[in-house]
Amino acid sequence: MTITGKNLIAGQWTGETEGGFTAFDANTHQPINTPFADATTEEVNTAIIRANEAFTTYSQLSAAKRAAFLRAIGEQINALGDELVEAACAETGLPAMRIQGERGRTVGQLGLFADLLEAGEYPAVIDKADADRQPLPKPDTRLGYLPLGVVGVFAASNFPLAFSTAGGDTASALAAGCPVVMKAHAAHPATAELVASAILKAIELCGLDKGVFSLLQGKNYAISSQIVTHPLVKAVGFTGSERVGMILQQQIYQRPEPIPFYGELGSINPQFLMPAKVDQDGEELAKTLVASLMMGQGQICTSPGVWAVIANKKGDHDNGDDSYTRFVNFAAETLSEQPAGVMLTPAMCASYNKAVEARKSIGGVELLATGLSGEQQQCSATLFTTDLKSFVNSPLLQEEIFGFSALIVRCADFAEMMQFIAVLKGNLAASIHAIDKDFDLARDVAQAVAHKVGRLIYNQVPTGVEVCASMNHGGPFPASTNIRTTSVGSEAIKRFQRPICYQNMPQELLPAILKC
Amino acid sequence: MTITGKNLIAGQWTGETEGGFTAFDANTHQPINTPFADATTEEVNTAIIRANEAFTTYSQLSAAKRAAFLRAIGEQINALGDELVEAACAETGLPAMRIQGERGRTVGQLGLFADLLEAGEYPAVIDKADADRQPLPKPDTRLGYLPLGVVGVFAASNFPLAFSTAGGDTASALAAGCPVVMKAHAAHPATAELVASAILKAIELCGLDKGVFSLLQGKNYAISSQIVTHPLVKAVGFTGSERVGMILQQQIYQRPEPIPFYGELGSINPQFLMPAKVDQDGEELAKTLVASLMMGQGQICTSPGVWAVIANKKGDHDNGDDSYTRFVNFAAETLSEQPAGVMLTPAMCASYNKAVEARKSIGGVELLATGLSGEQQQCSATLFTTDLKSFVNSPLLQEEIFGFSALIVRCADFAEMMQFIAVLKGNLAASIHAIDKDFDLARDVAQAVAHKVGRLIYNQVPTGVEVCASMNHGGPFPASTNIRTTSVGSEAIKRFQRPICYQNMPQELLPAILKC
Repeated sequence: MTITGKNLIAGQWTGETEGGFTAFDANTHQPINTPFADATTEEVNTAIIRANEAFTTYSQLSAAKRAAFLRAIGEQINALGDELVEAACAETGLPAMRIQGERGRTVGQLGLFADLLEAGEYPAVIDKADADRQPLPKPDTRLGYLPLGVVGVFAASNFPLAFSTAGGDTASALAAGCPVVMKAHAAHPATAELVASAILKAIELCGLDKGVFSLLQGKNYAISSQIVTHPLVKAVGFTGSERVGMILQQQIYQRPEPIPFYGELGSINPQFLMPAKVDQDGEELAKTLVASLMMGQGQICTSPGVWAVIANKKGDHDNGDDSYTRFVNFAAETLSEQPAGVMLTPAMCASYNKAVEARKSIGGVELLATGLSGEQQQCSATLFTTDLKSFVNSPLLQEEIFGFSALIVRCADFAEMMQFIAVLKGNLAASIHAIDKDFDLARDVAQAVAHKVGRLIYNQVPTGVEVCASMNHGGPFPASTNIRTTSVGSEAIKRFQRPICYQNMPQELLPAILKC
Repeated sequence: MTITGKNLIAGQWTGETEGGFTAFDANTHQPINTPFADATTEEVNTAIIRANEAFTTYSQLSAAKRAAFLRAIGEQINALGDELVEAACAETGLPAMRIQGERGRTVGQLGLFADLLEAGEYPAVIDKADADRQPLPKPDTRLGYLPLGVVGVFAASNFPLAFSTAGGDTASALAAGCPVVMKAHAAHPATAELVASAILKAIELCGLDKGVFSLLQGKNYAISSQIVTHPLVKAVGFTGSERVGMILQQQIYQRPEPIPFYGELGSINPQFLMPAKVDQDGEELAKTLVASLMMGQGQICTSPGVWAVIANKKGDHDNGDDSYTRFVNFAAETLSEQPAGVMLTPAMCASYNKAVEARKSIGGVELLATGLSGEQQQCSATLFTTDLKSFVNSPLLQEEIFGFSALIVRCADFAEMMQFIAVLKGNLAASIHAIDKDFDLARDVAQAVAHKVGRLIYNQVPTGVEVCASMNHGGPFPASTNIRTTSVGSEAIKRFQRPICYQNMPQELLPAILKC
């Protein structure tokens, strides 16, 4: 398939690519030849208006037909074959095996929502009429759900498939009955175009209104503003940095009509290393955490960025012989042997290096180890350490470094570990690493840290998010702008639906699931 | 019980009442003697800090104990006896029978949440581990819910019990495991104090931390701002005007940490009168709608404020003999015979009269009928009419008049009725009044108007909101600031909880409902 570089506006490939922007080959840092068109104001507007027109029929589509559509998208993505894998690898620097796995996850989550639709997307709540009730008769009331309308979705830099064009936000919005206007990530526009072409084929195969999906390419920030402030857009899904997410959030706040903004913004995913666990399994734990940190060069929202330990000899980590010191030394040694892979973009590599430099200059923070530099890029994994007081005094240490950098926070005792939890901001996930001997401490940590995270893990690392009904990928701010929702798993569909009560309605006017 | 006029701050009655504000007797328009203390900045802060301290134990309380607490509040409210009814009648002008009914509803909805807690407040979603899954083992993941933290609640003017101190927001927040800091409405502070004293007794009987509930009195707007912007407040419930609600919303937007704001702001609750129904049952329909409009002097959020009809002879409503004209004439005649009851406060009476005057001067709007003036107040019900074009051109006509005023919108044909729906803003409820002959039209109306309302009703009036599991009292803006939630019915609890995924957790650290 030839990449056109154009936008997909309700079935039409449009846009002027001459003089357009290019993606970079993550491995060579050279621009990739194809130029891409920045979507114009008119194209953005047309995409949204056509999506809103398509909403009328798409929102009425039976659950079975929506399910068939989602499965068709998955089939068409698979049908793209190696071309998709090659495009994504070139644009992100991620290895083919990772992209193949991510493709499986993407197709799998489309299937998960299809399964959900076929099984009945929500439980029917029906309170039948009771004409004899005193003092007043009880009317028949039934609780149903309606899709919200056009959804704007922003692709993520770090998951070119699973959190991008046909990723979780798109899948859950389409499953809910909402048309999607997708803003591609400028780092992987060819991947986006390929996936968009698969969605278009699925639309054609299912005979749907082509306004159901549009893809907007662009590097121009005005495109994003236009999407989130457009009166016909009724919800927005975003996965990215806190900085960009909060710009969009502020623009949404200016709307006359409030709409939900589902922003997944950043997380340091604290790891709690209980003392007996460190004593018994310190070396294995260090290996496990370093391996989790190195996944995707740490450019993963659930990367374990902060590790809290109880260091009995405060600050005495480099020449003692206690279990904490052994753990730290082993973690530093392990990390120092890690070769850097390729980062997603040259800009992200530069940002990572800048953030690492900034961290070096924070008072009370010490660089423990540096990994091996990459072959293509000047960057490497880093392991820092600090004490609780410095952590509390430096809010910057709670900001995610997007990349393979971890910070060990030394707590002098368990009370300090609880203080650490008290000052923590919101996170997507936290893990407690413990053995039976740690149980009393682990329980206190679990109770306190539960209120700071969307997912609480015991003796496993936070990377690797299961896509299933019981998953929650969200959490208190800044992990998410909307604490009550998840962007992964079948509950994600609820973000794009809302309740409606049908009172005394004739059977013929009720949704299928509420008839009886 | 002597009314102290003080604030209830975590079990302590505090505040300087000398020189404080007074409520008005709605019947006599005279100030009621007791002075009430405006809560000070320090009192507001103490209430919130103590609520947050109480959150630690209250959020851990078993569902059974939370249920017992809710029932105890209901029992203590009933134990206040006639004193509560008398206080509420004096402060609101509502008749005793209405207040007694509202007390029943208030106690009933505390019981509804208690039932929900006892039955298991959410369905357990458990995906067990699968060590053999390929390519990676599946971890054990379980979806639970946690309370958000301290909830700020604002009492409503028009429901001194059911939407105030121990009303739906308080009941659902306490049910969810959240402490409540309540801002009493300045129009009924004695009613608020009585109910707060009942909650305090229930807290004592159940042996709970007294920080679980505080009542703040006041007329000073700074109290409200302090509540909604306080970093320890994690959600806000509000029922009131769009003007005040949007001031609070804007203040919440300024917070570094976004929190959910559940504002129920206003609604005109359109009524769709299908032609065959008007032809067959016009007189009965007119009576029914006028009776619904007169409930509580129209000071009810589900009051039927706009009635859409198909008037074949456009503008020819006063001397024709068609069914539409007969309906309008009968509605006007019926309304003109309605005696005005007492409005909630002198200020609301004045606001109503001002809004009615403003409506009279809108181009294309005609006053059809005026009800009988009240004995105590100079105000009366009003019925206006306009054509679709004038409705479209005057956005003011979509703003709720808080009081017994309705507007008949004449649509020249069914196409105009569909245009009317297209321009409608969000509403709490809409009703379709139809007989079998109207069915095809009614179906089109139902499909279109569903996207504009939180509750869609067939052949019943919108007033009288059932408190049950299938109720939805919310809807698109401005009906609600949060389209995905309801403030009435058992689903209201979800506003104050959020999901958390427990991964690979030992049984001992799981909530009871997720153990197995």
